[in-house]
Amino acid sequence: MKKLKRSSRLVEMTQYLLTRPHTLISLTAFADRYQSAKSSISEDLAIIKEVFEEEGIGELQTLAGAAGGVKYMPFMRESAALDIMKKICLKLEQPDRVLPGGYLYMTDMLGQPELLADVGRMFATAFSHRKIDVIMTVETKGIPLAYATAACLNIPVVIVRRDNKVTEGSAVSINYVSGSTKRIQTMSLARRALKEQSHVLIIDDFMKVGGTIQGMMDLLYEFKATVAGVGVFVESGEVELEERLLEDYISLAKLTAVDMKTKQSTVIPGNYFHK
Amino acid sequence: MKKLKRSSRLVEMTQYLLTRPHTLISLTAFADRYQSAKSSISEDLAIIKEVFEEEGIGELQTLAGAAGGVKYMPFMRESAALDIMKKICLKLEQPDRVLPGGYLYMTDMLGQPELLADVGRMFATAFSHRKIDVIMTVETKGIPLAYATAACLNIPVVIVRRDNKVTEGSAVSINYVSGSTKRIQTMSLARRALKEQSHVLIIDDFMKVGGTIQGMMDLLYEFKATVAGVGVFVESGEVELEERLLEDYISLAKLTAVDMKTKQSTVIPGNYFHK
Repeated sequence: MKKLKRSSRLVEMTQYLLTRPHTLISLTAFADRYQSAKSSISEDLAIIKEVFEEEGIGELQTLAGAAGGVKYMPFMRESAALDIMKKICLKLEQPDRVLPGGYLYMTDMLGQPELLADVGRMFATAFSHRKIDVIMTVETKGIPLAYATAACLNIPVVIVRRDNKVTEGSAVSINYVSGSTKRIQTMSLARRALKEQSHVLIIDDFMKVGGTIQGMMDLLYEFKATVAGVGVFVESGEVELEERLLEDYISLAKLTAVDMKTKQSTVIPGNYFHK
Repeated sequence: MKKLKRSSRLVEMTQYLLTRPHTLISLTAFADRYQSAKSSISEDLAIIKEVFEEEGIGELQTLAGAAGGVKYMPFMRESAALDIMKKICLKLEQPDRVLPGGYLYMTDMLGQPELLADVGRMFATAFSHRKIDVIMTVETKGIPLAYATAACLNIPVVIVRRDNKVTEGSAVSINYVSGSTKRIQTMSLARRALKEQSHVLIIDDFMKVGGTIQGMMDLLYEFKATVAGVGVFVESGEVELEERLLEDYISLAKLTAVDMKTKQSTVIPGNYFHK
């Protein structure tokens, strides 16, 4: 890269950091990249850090010493997250979303890149200080949420399949009871998809009793993995507390009531906002 | 937002643009956001534009006039894309990836946020000047590629299901013959997932004869939609030309040979790099 003026360097460094979240970049690497003294780089980073933190873009963590450098950690302030989530809840309450069985049609919303980026950033903020090696979800609707979170945390995603596909090699399968069908179903994960002893964050789009998530946890047990956290986009509040299979999870929205006659639902911000 | 110094403003504007690809932002909006004169904003944008274009980050399109403003369009130079793709091809050639039936295990690679961001940017570059309303893929492995592309182009994704889920409402189903199983299979899309007359970019992870993609095209016909393009991550070259069901597609990599005895495969950059 040719030598840049400070103003241009600030633009380039900003994009360099933003596209490499949760990645430690040494001062030396920056100094080489921009053919500049480390002292100038440090001044640039101080400016970027201030803007990122004042404007709620993320944290710029500085590590001192020989192995030191900077790491950009995206976050979203809770006040900003709550504003966005309230708008999402209003959309989820649109009457034509109520489907038979008390489900909500939200596939269209899970197709919007902007919403996904926001939700991914919320999950990344909620789980940013946990040790996580990999994010797990089950096909299909949780997949975009898992990837949006993974992009912020810079960790890989594994997708649990609802059947055992030929193109994945040997796999581990378990049975579980899904709350939606009340029937025994199968989910499986390729043996090579997950290293043993991994710390795994589970992300899914919707949770009622928690049967599907419990299934993923059972599967993780087979891989000797640890559950680092559970995040769901929408939880159903229409579940008796004693029915719920898990307690330790974060929800971003909560479906508190569905009136099948009027096709009216009530959706409020989830437990993440009521700590 | 409080008034920022020029250096801080450049950092903030850079992140603002990067997180809003393919979105027109008016000079007035920027002037209000930063409480600065339009002339200062224009100078800032000129600096950002130069860096983005010199460093191959993207194009900063400037639209003059009352409805004018700037639009950031991510791209990747073909030379940079080819360098990255060559490394991806080497990974795809690892011997333990060859699966029964001449398939390649690449689920792990499709779980890596960095690779996905690169590949999404390549597809976005390849299709950036076409009119596209929505990106379509079929579950499961094409999904992360579709979202990575959608994030760059700022357009929504629809996912075709391999069965008809209860939680999606009324759906259109079609039958197709998948090259991998040679059996008749079903794919379906919720009626409300796609507006009629949409321009649709099809993205998938792997193409052999093209049966699955042909199925998606048949489904699009039912929605009176137009195919704006087809992009596949890896195409199999082990197909007779007359067998291939479609001609107009972009591939990023091509699997030219699989030796089942030695479990050795050969993967080269795809037709995108041989125009």
